[in-house]
Amino acid sequence: MKASRVLTLQASVLLLLMAPSYSRLTAQEPAQSKIVRLAELEIDQAQLEKYKAALREEIEASIRLEPGVLTLYAMALKDNPTQVRILETYADVAAYRAHLETPHFKKYKAATQGMVKSLKLLETDPILLGTKGR
Amino acid sequence: MKASRVLTLQASVLLLLMAPSYSRLTAQEPAQSKIVRLAELEIDQAQLEKYKAALREEIEASIRLEPGVLTLYAMALKDNPTQVRILETYADVAAYRAHLETPHFKKYKAATQGMVKSLKLLETDPILLGTKGR
Repeated sequence: MKASRVLTLQASVLLLLMAPSYSRLTAQEPAQSKIVRLAELEIDQAQLEKYKAALREEIEASIRLEPGVLTLYAMALKDNPTQVRILETYADVAAYRAHLETPHFKKYKAATQGMVKSLKLLETDPILLGTKGR
Repeated sequence: MKASRVLTLQASVLLLLMAPSYSRLTAQEPAQSKIVRLAELEIDQAQLEKYKAALREEIEASIRLEPGVLTLYAMALKDNPTQVRILETYADVAAYRAHLETPHFKKYKAATQGMVKSLKLLETDPILLGTKGR
């Protein structure tokens, strides 16, 4: 291997390694076209564990299969565990519309229909989505 | 440069490059010790822009300076923009306690004291924190 090729390899490596480090330092994300929404759900107490399992499956598939689904952060309120909150972030409207048509989302919707007592979708304007990245 | 050393370099590079790729594919994060909280705030309408500026400054500093502050996702409800929600994720209790003692947090708290009409902190148990990473 020639020295010049080694140097090129090392330079490429440096660039590749610098890219993620840089993004880790960036708190602000461009959020103009992003859809950021907070879902507030109340779940039937008797079906809570089944609901959580269905939700986990849906989130796992959405994050893995859909490039435009950026975060689905699901949590239950400690003081009232049947109250579920989901922070949903989509790259844009098209990504959100595509999400609604996926088999995993349709499966989740059908399976949990009788478990969700109420659902409120709060549309939001991001102020700053600060994250470490990974 | 000997061939063996080049191989070692290439192997190290591969390992380094594989690590972030793997994490990007992982939807589930270990969340046992994590603190995940939803803050619900009502802001004085007349001071809303000043409040948002102070919040942005605080989030930017927290994400940049504190290893244990993982996300601070701040958003305003579209239908009621004085209603602000912040999804706060900390690595653990120690990281959260350290956050409260930082100069940037104390500055934010003092500056916004007269702007925040109400503040509710909802402690949560994560169901699944699904994210693409970056």
